[in-house]
Amino acid sequence: MQARGRRTRAELIQGMRDAIQEKGVARSSINDVLEATGVKKGSLYFHFADKDELALAALEQAGEDFLDFVAESLKGNTPCERLDAFLEEAVSYHRQAGFVGGCIFGNTTLEMADSDPRYSALLERVFDDWVGKLAEVIAAGQETGDIRGDIPPAALGRHAVAAIEGGIMQARLQKSEQPLRESLETLMALAQADGGSGEP
Amino acid sequence: MQARGRRTRAELIQGMRDAIQEKGVARSSINDVLEATGVKKGSLYFHFADKDELALAALEQAGEDFLDFVAESLKGNTPCERLDAFLEEAVSYHRQAGFVGGCIFGNTTLEMADSDPRYSALLERVFDDWVGKLAEVIAAGQETGDIRGDIPPAALGRHAVAAIEGGIMQARLQKSEQPLRESLETLMALAQADGGSGEP
Repeated sequence: MQARGRRTRAELIQGMRDAIQEKGVARSSINDVLEATGVKKGSLYFHFADKDELALAALEQAGEDFLDFVAESLKGNTPCERLDAFLEEAVSYHRQAGFVGGCIFGNTTLEMADSDPRYSALLERVFDDWVGKLAEVIAAGQETGDIRGDIPPAALGRHAVAAIEGGIMQARLQKSEQPLRESLETLMALAQADGGSGEP
Repeated sequence: MQARGRRTRAELIQGMRDAIQEKGVARSSINDVLEATGVKKGSLYFHFADKDELALAALEQAGEDFLDFVAESLKGNTPCERLDAFLEEAVSYHRQAGFVGGCIFGNTTLEMADSDPRYSALLERVFDDWVGKLAEVIAAGQETGDIRGDIPPAALGRHAVAAIEGGIMQARLQKSEQPLRESLETLMALAQADGGSGEP
């Protein structure tokens, strides 16, 4: 594909991604994307067979960007610092959005999981990769003895992702970071070794 | 209101509740409810001013029923047994639904939290009452020393609700109880006192 074609394709993907983030897959239309991007209909259909193909490409791109964000946010000198930094970045992202819009993957799961297996397969892959990235850091923290070692890293990673998604849901409801922050601080307190063993 | 009027009202509420559970608030219409119940349009508008009033009444009723379900499920001889029994009932409910449909309160949160404060207020109340019911049992478990005492009961309850909602999301995606069960087993392991203190 030539440079101009690649640019048009990227614009269409971004246009659909914005639409999905704002109002979900079902309510996003080809016309929304044409209006937002100024691309001609014939050009869109040169790149994408139908709305679902474009929506899946948009979610694929969002997934790649999100996993890059996770990898970049997991920064720090120790595994616990890296997890803390990621959770802080996640809260900050949703704060900047005013706790509006939520998580595009969580939203699309609730919208599409019962109706279209192509979306489920893509979303399952994004969540699995996210769990995997957290599990790596959790395993490192278990090695150093900072994170309790009695729970498999993948199980703790899965639990963390669930707590984050559920926390985002509560934060959207209250338009406040408080429930998300509370859930994540509780997660970190629970995950740290010897945190629950009482007074020394 | 006479018996017949009360029965009609209850039928309308149940019809809207079924519609919301199946396809959300936005896609549920007055006509869906009229078709499902056989009630005449004039009779519906005698009971409810508009679709939102009926939808809010349906969610109110669903909330009351859910909180009864929570209270009834928290059964057992010890606080940990009571929490385990509730989590088991929750997994069982979603298994029976084939991991289709999810949680009507979580779904409606993601659908309506950014657009209509009447829905947010109602949903926030349901989630707060749910957190409160779990927090009571958690506090009792802290008294007996079975649940770690370094985290406030309300914070642990909020975290549990987030983990359940996020776990339901993952279970819907995979059409399997495994991610929900894994998240909840991890929650129980994390919450128990001295679980992370290593070998005795």
